[in-house]
Order: sequence, then C-alpha cells, then structure tokens
Amino acid sequence: MNIGILITGTEFATGTKQDTNSTMFAKMAFEHGLDVVFIHICKDDEIDITKNVQFALEFCDILVVSGGLGPTFDDVTREALSTALDEPLVYDEDWLDFLKKDYKSRNVELTQMRKRMALRLSNSKPIPNKFGKAIGFFYEKNNKIVIALPGIPQEAKSMLNYALNALGHRDKIREVKLFRTFGIKESDVSNLVKDYKGTFINVSACGVDVYVQDAVSDQIKSILGKYIYSDDNLEMEEVLGKLLREKKLTIATAESSTGGLIVSRLVNVAGSSDYCLGSVVSYSNQAKMDILGVKQQTLELYGAVSEQTAKEMLLGAKKLTNADIVLCDTGIAGPGGGSEEKPIGLHYIGIMFKNEVKIFKEIYQGERNYTRLYISQYALNLARLALLNDDELFA
Amino acid sequence: MNIGILITGTEFATGTKQDTNSTMFAKMAFEHGLDVVFIHICKDDEIDITKNVQFALEFCDILVVSGGLGPTFDDVTREALSTALDEPLVYDEDWLDFLKKDYKSRNVELTQMRKRMALRLSNSKPIPNKFGKAIGFFYEKNNKIVIALPGIPQEAKSMLNYALNALGHRDKIREVKLFRTFGIKESDVSNLVKDYKGTFINVSACGVDVYVQDAVSDQIKSILGKYIYSDDNLEMEEVLGKLLREKKLTIATAESSTGGLIVSRLVNVAGSSDYCLGSVVSYSNQAKMDILGVKQQTLELYGAVSEQTAKEMLLGAKKLTNADIVLCDTGIAGPGGGSEEKPIGLHYIGIMFKNEVKIFKEIYQGERNYTRLYISQYALNLARLALLNDDELFA
Repeated sequence: MNIGILITGTEFATGTKQDTNSTMFAKMAFEHGLDVVFIHICKDDEIDITKNVQFALEFCDILVVSGGLGPTFDDVTREALSTALDEPLVYDEDWLDFLKKDYKSRNVELTQMRKRMALRLSNSKPIPNKFGKAIGFFYEKNNKIVIALPGIPQEAKSMLNYALNALGHRDKIREVKLFRTFGIKESDVSNLVKDYKGTFINVSACGVDVYVQDAVSDQIKSILGKYIYSDDNLEMEEVLGKLLREKKLTIATAESSTGGLIVSRLVNVAGSSDYCLGSVVSYSNQAKMDILGVKQQTLELYGAVSEQTAKEMLLGAKKLTNADIVLCDTGIAGPGGGSEEKPIGLHYIGIMFKNEVKIFKEIYQGERNYTRLYISQYALNLARLALLNDDELFA
Repeated sequence: MNIGILITGTEFATGTKQDTNSTMFAKMAFEHGLDVVFIHICKDDEIDITKNVQFALEFCDILVVSGGLGPTFDDVTREALSTALDEPLVYDEDWLDFLKKDYKSRNVELTQMRKRMALRLSNSKPIPNKFGKAIGFFYEKNNKIVIALPGIPQEAKSMLNYALNALGHRDKIREVKLFRTFGIKESDVSNLVKDYKGTFINVSACGVDVYVQDAVSDQIKSILGKYIYSDDNLEMEEVLGKLLREKKLTIATAESSTGGLIVSRLVNVAGSSDYCLGSVVSYSNQAKMDILGVKQQTLELYGAVSEQTAKEMLLGAKKLTNADIVLCDTGIAGPGGGSEEKPIGLHYIGIMFKNEVKIFKEIYQGERNYTRLYISQYALNLARLALLNDDELFA
C-alpha cells in the first residue's frame, strides 16, 4: 500500500526552516510496511493545501497531512481538507468538552478560533492528542485514506503511531536493504544490478549507495562483495572504528590536501579516543619538514605532491605516534595549483600497516571540498581493506 | 516572482535519505530575491515526474527540477520534462562533442545511455556543468521558466547559480540582508531586533543568522556590532582567511576535542595554503606529550582538559610551526568522559598571538559533533577578533 506525505508550513515550504517531520513519518511508515511515494511541502495557504491534497491522492492510497490544525489564523488545513474531500467539518463533542474543561481550569477564554481545534471531517474517526490541544483524524472514502495530524513533532509522532496501528497491516511488509559501496563506479554498479527490480542507487563523494529489495539482497551482496563497506547505514569512519576496536589497533594520519578531514571524521565517532591517536596536518612544506621530517631534497626533487613525499609523511607520522595504522595524503584539491604534469585533482594516498607502506595515485576531478571528502573516504577505505586482510592491498 | 522546487529521487521521496538540496536551493533563490512557494519530492518515475511538473507549474513562475539527468536507467527527468512541456529532446551538439572527447580520453565507451547526458529540451538554453557530465538547461514558455539540474549537490549548486544570474533580477520583490553573528545568544538577538518588521532568525552551532530588511540593515548592523562576522553570507573560515591574507599572517592549530575540524575548516577555503601552515591533532595524551611537548606532570596534575594543558599545547604548536596565530582546544565532546568536576561539554579554547596567550573556558551542551562544530567556530572567531584588535580579547 502506498503512502504520501504532505507537510504544510510556510517556513518549511520556503526553505527557511528544514522540515524533519517528513523523514520521521517516512521512517515510521516504512517500518510499518508501507511504501512512501512522495513528500510534498506547501505553504499554510488554503487554496494551495486544497489543490495539493487533491493532486496527492492521485499517487497514493494513504495521505498523511501534517500541520495547520492549531488555533491561529494561518492554521487552515482543516478547511482545505473539507474543500478537497467535499466533506463538512463537525465538532468532535468529546474533544470540545475536553477543551472547555481544560481552558476553564487554566482560566483562559475558549475563543471561536480555539474551538476550531475540536473540528474534524464528518465521517472521520478521531485521533486523540496526548500532548496538545488539536485533535487529529483519519478519513476514508473510495479506498483512499487521509490522516490529519498537527505539525508539532512529538504530538504528530504519537498520533501517527496511533493511526498506523488502528489501520493495521493491510498490505505485506516491504523490506529494503541499503548497501554502501566505495571504489566502484556508478555506471558499473548500475550495470551489475540493473536486472534486479526495485533497486535504486545514489551517488556522493562517499561512494555509491545501493538500495535493494530484501528478496534479492543476498545475491546483490555477493555481487558487490568487498566494495560494500556498510550494510547497516553506517559511515566509513564508524565501520573502521568498529574494526579498530575489535582488533585493538590504533590509527593516526599525516594529512596535506585533506587538511585534517580524515582525522576529524575519525573523531566524529563517539569513543574514538580508544583508537585514534591524532594527526599531523602538514599543509605547508615547512610543516612537512619541521614536524614530519620530510627531506628538503625530496620536496625539491619530486615536489610535495609525489609518491616519495607521501612515503616520508607516513614514516614521519609513524615515528611520532607509533600508531598501528598510519594514513596519509598529499594532493592538489584545486581550484588553483595545477600544472600539466600535476593536474588539479592529483593525489597520492598512502597507508602504513605492519611496517609495509603502500602508496596509491588517484586523480579526482571535482569541486575542492568534494574532492577532499572523496580523498578522505579513499584513505579510510584503505584502512578498512587492510584490516580485512585484503589480498590485493597487502599481498 | 515565485519559484518552486521539485526534487526527484526515490531515496528522498521515500524518506530513506534526507534531501538537503531543496534547502540549499531555497536559500540561493531567497538571496536572489525570489519567493520560494513549495518543495516537492517525487520518485524517479517518469509518470510521477511528468504529473508533478505539470501540477507544480500551477503554483510558480519558475520551477527548479533537480535530479535524474545522469546516465543510468532510472534517470528519466529529461523524458518526463519533454512529455510535461510537450517539447522534444535534442542533443546539445557542443556538449556531445565534449562527452565524445572526454570519454575517448578516458578510454571509456560513450554508450547510448551516456549520450543522453547531452540531451536537452528543444528551444531550451544550456546550463554548463563544470563538475559533471550531465548538461542542465533552462526553458521558457508562456511566462513559465523551468530550470533542469542534476541532483549532485556540487554540480547543482554552481549550475543554479549560473541560471539565476542568467535569469537576472526580473522582479526583485525582496531586499534582504543576512548578518551572521557569533558569541551572542538567540534570545538576546531576538530582543534586540524584535521591533524591526520582517526580521527572522536562524540558529545553528555556527551562531545566529539574522535576516533583515534592507531598509533597516544599517541600524541592525550597528546594534549587533562586533558579533557580526559576516554580512556577505561567508563562513567564519572565509572571513578569517581574508583577514590573514590582508595582514600577511599565518595560522596553525593544536587540536584535541575538535579533532582536526578547525584546520579542516581553514583548508576548506581555496588558496588557504598561503596562510594555513597546518596542525597537530593530539587526540591522545601520548601525542600531546610526544608531538607537542605537553609535560607529563601537567597532564597528571591538571588533566588533559585544563587551562594548563591548553597553554602547553599552544606553546608546542608555536614552536613547531612558528605561525603568527596559533589556536588550540581541549575538551570533552561527549557522550562519554564527563565527571562532576569536568562535565561533558567543558572546553578550554586558546589563542596565541604576538607572544601573548589567552585561554577561554566554555561549557557547551550539545550532541558530540554539534559541540565540536561550535568549539571550532569559537576558536576561529577568537582569531578573527584578535586580528580586528579587539580590546577585550587582547587588552
């Protein structure tokens, strides 16, 4: 069964404020076995909401509408739903009684505007609000269901939960798995998985994320193999952190182009002080010499962006920290600094593990900070592969 | 003039992944003086996209459609736009040439699927893609404009920028200025600016952003004073980078809790190699001693999170790099590691400038990485204030 999400709220529709309800609802619906098919965000405008509801119902069996059930002038979702579904609004008498008592007890006038919070569509069923004053409801007609909820997250969450349970599992549970991969191109992934229906992919500097139907996930897992760094929606640094902790090993970095991004990502993980020792970010040549002990001659002969410099950076950081794994990078992130011989995007990424040193050359063409993120992911992935005893890496 | 945003992408429409392009686009459109009226997110489905485009154009003058211009089977936005707008697709010959050369140089076959990345609507204008292979375009008919962009953020950002500039200010409905502040609380900002109509505020770990109507911007600028680090939508590291370049000074950091985030942010700025020398990220006590020369006695007596340790970190980094400004931090980002005496969130942030050392104590209670971002902003702001000869900082 399909479900769509319509968020009303001018601050969200204008991008002034990031809506987060939609993602929360999507997750809840997903876990309930429903298939979310769209997220729409529109302004608190009666005509906009009316049109959006009518349009949205073309695409889904269940529509969640959240926001605009409160007491103020711009809360107009009730009225829009009434128009869109051609159903009058009526007071929920029980809820109106509750409001009367509640306002009286607080010595606040229950104005006409506030009374609207007890209105729901005729022929709808109430969804009680444990935390607030606005009632929600669900309404079914012609095999379409509309669930109306307030916009305040904690109220909406418990009310959607109530509604989903009341709804029951009308359709079989749908299961999707996410494989996060690195080191394989989007087009290659696409070719490998294109015959598996319901698969979709998403690309970023951190690699290719592959969403697959549970029924075929084992097959796809074996196809993508070691390119998969997470089947559990983890970041690379979390995966690596788990491996380091498991094997009781430590890590340090010597960074140039990434400028501290690799170590900062390692430290993103809570508890990383157990295995991450630190880093030398030698952005200048002087720092490469003074802190890491890279030879002046090496820099003069081969340049800062070279296999030789990368190697000496690794050795320097190893000497300073004695970490079990040392990662390094040196490169040209751009937009300046390229030459014919050494183009923008050229990077050397290195790893030292068990006293062995490996340096990899990579040219990545992207915006400066996208490139730096990619290179940091590359380096962290090297460490992951090394810990998994990857034969190609440490033969 | 109204603008609407349509994001295509099954992972976003299903709430599997949080879309962030819409907020980025909304911000860019807003700063261009346009009024964002909705955000719609639909699946990579040709019929869904077609219907959404037609529906969306009822609400806006300009529609940004992002996603689905790539080479894979689920990239179907081009085809949907062709149907929705009743306009055939044609190859952009220049872009096709570019693709031919590019693929040939990389020895990769330019398949029929990949050639589609040179397709655009007949009668549209191309939007070049500096970072990727898919061309974008804008298309105008019956006073409605459609801007088609890829979904990859770095590509989409620069291309939307290009499109908005090409569009020009056809109807400058809004003049808003953004003041980015740090070091002043949201409630204090709110009190100071509440009487100025049309002002709104957005809070993050990087401070309080204040959007104000142009007519009163001078008044608000003088009210917020030195708390404003940018009136030009710059990040703190960009502002600081400009000051360092102007004054021909260099910077380095010695980091613990921030774990390389400060230096990584400095290096985010293109050309930062002119003034950023590097960093020692001494996440472990051993690294603090071995690389920075913090005394064992200091660590034993006062602990790693102390004014004394911060001071020795500064002196160590100064000795290693001889930078004109050195920043440091040591603290407990959480969620573990707190005690009654030293609670989670406790940080010491230091600056050394003109041979003077200043250490500041700050307790910030937030999620681990939110805290680290805040502390990095705090440190960068110290350097900004020092360079502006702030009396309170260096009396």
